[in-house]
Amino acid sequence: MKKLINAIENVVRDPLMGMAAAHPELKVSIDPHYIVRADAPIPGKVAVVSGGGSGHEPLHGGFVGVGMLDGACPGEVFTSPTPDQMYACGQAVNSGAGVLFLVKNYTGDVLSFETAAELLHFDGVPVQNILVDDDVAVKDSLYTAGRRGVGTTVIMEKIVGAAAEAGYDLDQCADLARKVNQYGRSMGVALTSCTVPAAGKPSFELGDDEMEIGIGIHGEPGQKRMPVVSADEIATMLANEILDDPPYTRTVHEWDRQAGEWVDRELTDAPFAAGDDVIALVNSMGGTPLSELYTIYAKLAQICQDRQINIVRNLVGPYITSLEMQGCSITLVKVDDEMLGFWDASVRTPALRWGM
Amino acid sequence: MKKLINAIENVVRDPLMGMAAAHPELKVSIDPHYIVRADAPIPGKVAVVSGGGSGHEPLHGGFVGVGMLDGACPGEVFTSPTPDQMYACGQAVNSGAGVLFLVKNYTGDVLSFETAAELLHFDGVPVQNILVDDDVAVKDSLYTAGRRGVGTTVIMEKIVGAAAEAGYDLDQCADLARKVNQYGRSMGVALTSCTVPAAGKPSFELGDDEMEIGIGIHGEPGQKRMPVVSADEIATMLANEILDDPPYTRTVHEWDRQAGEWVDRELTDAPFAAGDDVIALVNSMGGTPLSELYTIYAKLAQICQDRQINIVRNLVGPYITSLEMQGCSITLVKVDDEMLGFWDASVRTPALRWGM
Repeated sequence: MKKLINAIENVVRDPLMGMAAAHPELKVSIDPHYIVRADAPIPGKVAVVSGGGSGHEPLHGGFVGVGMLDGACPGEVFTSPTPDQMYACGQAVNSGAGVLFLVKNYTGDVLSFETAAELLHFDGVPVQNILVDDDVAVKDSLYTAGRRGVGTTVIMEKIVGAAAEAGYDLDQCADLARKVNQYGRSMGVALTSCTVPAAGKPSFELGDDEMEIGIGIHGEPGQKRMPVVSADEIATMLANEILDDPPYTRTVHEWDRQAGEWVDRELTDAPFAAGDDVIALVNSMGGTPLSELYTIYAKLAQICQDRQINIVRNLVGPYITSLEMQGCSITLVKVDDEMLGFWDASVRTPALRWGM
Repeated sequence: MKKLINAIENVVRDPLMGMAAAHPELKVSIDPHYIVRADAPIPGKVAVVSGGGSGHEPLHGGFVGVGMLDGACPGEVFTSPTPDQMYACGQAVNSGAGVLFLVKNYTGDVLSFETAAELLHFDGVPVQNILVDDDVAVKDSLYTAGRRGVGTTVIMEKIVGAAAEAGYDLDQCADLARKVNQYGRSMGVALTSCTVPAAGKPSFELGDDEMEIGIGIHGEPGQKRMPVVSADEIATMLANEILDDPPYTRTVHEWDRQAGEWVDRELTDAPFAAGDDVIALVNSMGGTPLSELYTIYAKLAQICQDRQINIVRNLVGPYITSLEMQGCSITLVKVDDEMLGFWDASVRTPALRWGM
């Protein structure tokens, strides 16, 4: 294992120290680990918070800033943060307008955010948790019941973050976040594995000419292993799985603020259809160069054009990664005018910035 | 070799097709290969153009746009573009106010840009070529007489691009570019090699616990190979080489527009000194995750603070890469008010964007 790290026990702390030094507009807490806007809490504004295992940078800490997240809670590498981190982060950013937790669907993350939501609720903080489960590759996986949460998270954090900045209240932000998740689908591929520092060896093994289609962002098994094929064939496989995905129904467990208890909601994602406007994300798993992502994008754009799916905005680069894994993922999120307006709104974070 | 590519002969063309699809504000020429602003030529504006071998993305094509480059010429992977590319690109962006070529110091690039400058001159286009040679690791290298051109190129393209946007004439832009180069120093490290698609095997070999200090962006040999040490030790080695670098004098070969001939100029870089304001770039060689870059940044910030070097702006991420190579480089550029103003000016390119 060769990495630019110091002691294994500090692989989460050390980058946080770097972020603190590089970004004075953020405030970094080391005990417990979280990152918040230095100007939080913002009076009257819903606080949008996410978090999850480290190793997926810039997600989530790189998306803290004006127009996106108020706070992010990094766990150990590929490990859920703890409820006390989320609770402390929520307290640090709550202005009274409430806290919205955006939660990728991994069992540890879901349970920890539920505990944190209850703790905040008992402090009198309005709180809501929204699930992201957009990975069409597999249903039920290592660490996950149902679909995994991946690239749609980035789009959700941008759109809902902008809505909160614009004055949406907690229910409006939660409704919008649910819509983004219902409109978003993703799938990825790995050409190589990655090495968790504390493990010291690759998370899984792939042969010299093998790839794994439908990989998870922690290296969880996907749909199949097969010989590496061309970029165009890979883009076609991923895009077709996403675009042909049928309506997907799942039951989500959300906090009912009035009743002070958990309720089950059934949500169904409508499939993509000709005429849809979408935001397209072609994402690096970490170790894949930009030139290869644009090669994938070229084919994706052609496939979408052939199906009359209009890519109205795009993002190409490393946004939700798996350490140094080589590979990529594609995310498509259907957008309406409300969502597109918030996508285009100004944002200033370490990893996503425009308009300011 | 596992990569997201199609035919080997199209590894430069295919990403260009993706850029064309993703960025309608750019215009991509496939024969010969170049990328220009779709709104070029801009009346009255000096056109800033760079180029070099592919494999370093987002450099240079990702920096074409408002407030930065007017055009970029990508060669084959790790291979200089040809004079006809540069000539065609220069013609496409010239408004009459002239063309400034920013040239990384590799023998092939230097000679090709010189030929292109002469061709444009004989067409009556005012043209100037400025060298970037900022790598303190070694003097004379594979592909290079003198110091190699690396990370300072990114800073130069931003600052000089903003100056051209603001109305600087060709001589003013050239003077500013020379100053950025004289104020900038860089050095890098590789933990792994990279594989040029046409070669199909790693450019060089590093042992399982080895790193190469002072690596070039094409894998050219650096100062030494040694066992991998901690991120703090690596950051310290790179930062000290940069900050302790003595005055460096070289002779540059520049076009004299009035005389229509080449002249030699002797230029000396002053060393860094306590009290300097600098822009710091911590750059990924391509395959190194953001968390590791921030680990390096944390130590760099501490070293600079201890030496009373003030990091007034920073950039952390993959900006001048070497395919999927793991490793990083540090660039420090001393800045004055003129340079800082242009750094902060609005920019909108695929890879660098703020203020718009």
